[in-house]
Amino acid sequence: MKKDDCIFCKLANGDIPVEPVYEDDIVKVIFDASPASRGHLLIIPKEHVSNIYELDDNLAAHIFKTAVKLAKALNAVCDYDGLNVLQNNGEAAGQTVFHFHMHLIPRYKGDTVNVCWKPGEPDADELSEIRNNIAKEIQNG
Amino acid sequence: MKKDDCIFCKLANGDIPVEPVYEDDIVKVIFDASPASRGHLLIIPKEHVSNIYELDDNLAAHIFKTAVKLAKALNAVCDYDGLNVLQNNGEAAGQTVFHFHMHLIPRYKGDTVNVCWKPGEPDADELSEIRNNIAKEIQNG
Repeated sequence: MKKDDCIFCKLANGDIPVEPVYEDDIVKVIFDASPASRGHLLIIPKEHVSNIYELDDNLAAHIFKTAVKLAKALNAVCDYDGLNVLQNNGEAAGQTVFHFHMHLIPRYKGDTVNVCWKPGEPDADELSEIRNNIAKEIQNG
Repeated sequence: MKKDDCIFCKLANGDIPVEPVYEDDIVKVIFDASPASRGHLLIIPKEHVSNIYELDDNLAAHIFKTAVKLAKALNAVCDYDGLNVLQNNGEAAGQTVFHFHMHLIPRYKGDTVNVCWKPGEPDADELSEIRNNIAKEIQNG
């Protein structure tokens, strides 16, 4: 289902013309319009799904098989030093377009991409509680 | 196939004991030992694959279906503000253990996680060349 006011619905379904890097019935892969680096790709499902929580098994499987296919091709084509696969959910995580998309970001020495955090100390009791709650969710889901 | 000197082979296959958050025949999901944030998970295939380029379709599909399953559970359990899915390939991309793994990183306002880049200007000729070369790779692959 398309969403009328969604720019990625328009791009993925041809309402805004864009030359795809790859396309099939389920996804369109395009260059990011404001690339982090040379060859930065976006994998966009044609169906409107806002985020990872809205993916069903078939779409999830297809998206990551597409990511692997494109990563192999990028690796053969771009003379890069590494590759980040990144997928953001929610504004606090850096999501700016609320139609699911997966970034493939080639990395080059000295590029402007920064992916880092200050490693924390795990709290065993807290983790045990999260683990139990996740197990319950998966069992009920 | 396990690799003898690989810590993630040992963790995923039980040679180093770890209480999993989720486990099936193909993957083990554990808490990151140096978490970026509360609930930071790693999805690790039991088979030794170094990076995204070594995944076949079945393993790729299973890994991302697992990511969706765990993301839904994390979202229900942790009171977070966003979620980054991150998968690094190569030292220049921040990969430190050379056994494929996918991060699920809950995001909280004011956390220490930084994922950013300086957006560049796309070069139409360069992109056209990359697009053509990727199409050839996919056709031959």
